[in-house]
Amino acid sequence: MSGIFQPCGIITLTTDFGSRDPFVALLKAAVLRRLPQARLVDITHELPAFRPEVAGFWLERSFEWFPVGSVHLAVVDPGVGSSRRVLAALVRGHVLIAPDNGLLAAVLERSAEAVVSALDPGLPAALGLPTPSATFHGRDLMAPVAAEVAAGRLDPQAMGPQVTDWLRGVVPPAQRLAAQVRGNVAVIDRYGNAITNVPAVLLEGMVGITALAAGQELPWGRTYGDVPEGRCLSLVNSFGVVEIACNRGNAAQVLSLSQADPVIFRAGNPDCCRGIKGLKGGGNPL
Amino acid sequence: MSGIFQPCGIITLTTDFGSRDPFVALLKAAVLRRLPQARLVDITHELPAFRPEVAGFWLERSFEWFPVGSVHLAVVDPGVGSSRRVLAALVRGHVLIAPDNGLLAAVLERSAEAVVSALDPGLPAALGLPTPSATFHGRDLMAPVAAEVAAGRLDPQAMGPQVTDWLRGVVPPAQRLAAQVRGNVAVIDRYGNAITNVPAVLLEGMVGITALAAGQELPWGRTYGDVPEGRCLSLVNSFGVVEIACNRGNAAQVLSLSQADPVIFRAGNPDCCRGIKGLKGGGNPL
Amino acid sequence: MSGIFQPCGIITLTTDFGSRDPFVALLKAAVLRRLPQARLVDITHELPAFRPEVAGFWLERSFEWFPVGSVHLAVVDPGVGSSRRVLAALVRGHVLIAPDNGLLAAVLERSAEAVVSALDPGLPAALGLPTPSATFHGRDLMAPVAAEVAAGRLDPQAMGPQVTDWLRGVVPPAQRLAAQVRGNVAVIDRYGNAITNVPAVLLEGMVGITALAAGQELPWGRTYGDVPEGRCLSLVNSFGVVEIACNRGNAAQVLSLSQADPVIFRAGNPDCCRGIKGLKGGGNPL
Repeated sequence: MSGIFQPCGIITLTTDFGSRDPFVALLKAAVLRRLPQARLVDITHELPAFRPEVAGFWLERSFEWFPVGSVHLAVVDPGVGSSRRVLAALVRGHVLIAPDNGLLAAVLERSAEAVVSALDPGLPAALGLPTPSATFHGRDLMAPVAAEVAAGRLDPQAMGPQVTDWLRGVVPPAQRLAAQVRGNVAVIDRYGNAITNVPAVLLEGMVGITALAAGQELPWGRTYGDVPEGRCLSLVNSFGVVEIACNRGNAAQVLSLSQADPVIFRAGNPDCCRGIKGLKGGGNPL
Repeated sequence: MSGIFQPCGIITLTTDFGSRDPFVALLKAAVLRRLPQARLVDITHELPAFRPEVAGFWLERSFEWFPVGSVHLAVVDPGVGSSRRVLAALVRGHVLIAPDNGLLAAVLERSAEAVVSALDPGLPAALGLPTPSATFHGRDLMAPVAAEVAAGRLDPQAMGPQVTDWLRGVVPPAQRLAAQVRGNVAVIDRYGNAITNVPAVLLEGMVGITALAAGQELPWGRTYGDVPEGRCLSLVNSFGVVEIACNRGNAAQVLSLSQADPVIFRAGNPDCCRGIKGLKGGGNPL
Repeated sequence: MSGIFQPCGIITLTTDFGSRDPFVALLKAAVLRRLPQARLVDITHELPAFRPEVAGFWLERSFEWFPVGSVHLAVVDPGVGSSRRVLAALVRGHVLIAPDNGLLAAVLERSAEAVVSALDPGLPAALGLPTPSATFHGRDLMAPVAAEVAAGRLDPQAMGPQVTDWLRGVVPPAQRLAAQVRGNVAVIDRYGNAITNVPAVLLEGMVGITALAAGQELPWGRTYGDVPEGRCLSLVNSFGVVEIACNRGNAAQVLSLSQADPVIFRAGNPDCCRGIKGLKGGGNPL
């Protein structure tokens, strides 16, 4: 399944570098030195520092929207300079490069066919790279490697030994018990939507769903406008996961919902006319 | 005037998506899947949520600086998932694509020659698009359509029926009554400049102008340095509209000016030596 | 040394425009009108307003990571519309374009071989540019000039008279007195690292270094993990300058350190086992 990688020239960047300092620009410079025609796309650089699992959540929900052949470089790297490994994973025609700190767990845990390599410590020298600085392996190691892979000069499966002991995620996956699903708020987005770790497929077959979040019962809907302005609901969002939202409002503020808060979904509310249909929605770009 | 559209490959993006979440990246992914060589340029993604008219103000003042043949995708879309239409407008060699929620009003109200179409509900299927998610038509509908138009594969005038009943703007235009012009603060920019909805041309012929804003009289000038540091003035800015600014300071803070506040410009101040000349300034890029 | 400039098509942008308003997009539009195939890379647009020296600090530490042949446009320009000059500097195969307000001082003070020109006031007309607006020379003058240089149509040494009286920097350089180096905090980055104006080379040969900052003694290290979580240290960062950092924490907050605060480095601490070796680190990309 994960055969030979055919690069399309796109390299996406996902970091916690922010936009205030020139760190992202230096990643790009390091790529452009080796692949001047690289097509760089920012996924986000405003991720919380020191939280690889948040980067992983968004990366997992984003990378397959890009064309097959893309290289995805993700750098949330509080352990930079320590002995943590750097991973390169070939997943369904995409290559993901990131530190081995749990960042890739969300992708790899649902990708049994992934081929994961740990970068050989001798690879930088083999690529003619100077000794990396102690504090910026994104620029000094991962970006040049991403450029070589995107250029088709480096086989993502020949970068080091294949490994299966990559660091697992810290967030327990959502669970379904008969007519009830228990999950957690994974991230709060810019609009205040509380995006959960509950994939829509976990609710399949449930009818009359009610959400219980922050001590309140919330109705189920298809889109924000299914409730009056200022009212909250839960729905399957465009990433194929369930979120708690508020029509033209900020659900996290209205409900005092925070990251990691528990959310429960129950079936069987007779007042709810909607079953869960077409749940695939935007969750699968293919 | 608005003949056949000749795309130049540039697609600009204007949204309220922010930079914290990967929403903008997914718009770009949706474009790149259909037009890998698209040249994507961010106009801004930090627009206030639920305020299409602010997006429209900036878009109207920005789009014509780009090369003719550009496609401009603007997504501030609180009504996503409802029955609001999506518009495509051909205006002076540019194509603008946006929800029909007032966003395009600022452009269309001064573009009698524009040809405006409402996207045919059958268009997505005709383009081979899956059913859009309920909450992200930017990615699932508008971005692919923008890519097709920028690729030259979709005629912007053949996307649906021509309409003239697009939603009008909520902000009344500035008005001139003899030697007085009444307007409002349209937006406060990053520097604290209070940019009004008064186009420079509305002041044509007036001499000895004084601005009245937040209960204070302000002198007229050509550039920020025309007043001492920390002092405020009004001038024609580089977008061809009048703004209230402060030399090396934040006018909105200094004067307690907010969006929508009224601003009055009066002619005839004998202490003011300057007439209004060369008002076109940066307002017209051509 | 600074012979004929061979453009590589990359134009970097460094400004204080922020990301809320469309100002950066208009710089890009002005470039793309003249050089549609330009490869635009944002260095940062979140620089503090009215502080050219901060822009200069980052530009000096960033520009040489980009391929030789790049054009670097930097616009922090509180004096726009006044008579301040615009400079174009040819430095080690790169061209830098910026207002003459001290922004380029950090680069030029360490580049004796630089060839610096002041833009001829007749140049805009010669390029067919309309009269610039009074408040946005970045868009109306500097961006078109950058595009022409990046297109190879304008020789950076033929844009105006060569000058040596460019405005010097406001920050005194760090100084070494025997076994002690005195510097200042130059910028605080997103992570709260206090980056100093002390280049690593200034510490060469010193052993047993201790930093004195905000009244506290801090150990020296190679990477953040050399101290326990939450503890601070000083180290040579990936830009080749010394910074005060905190392992998985915010040093500026923990130590109450602000921009411009003095920092002293002393040699001779017998408890410190490390000399300064390999200080070049990431400071020199070549």
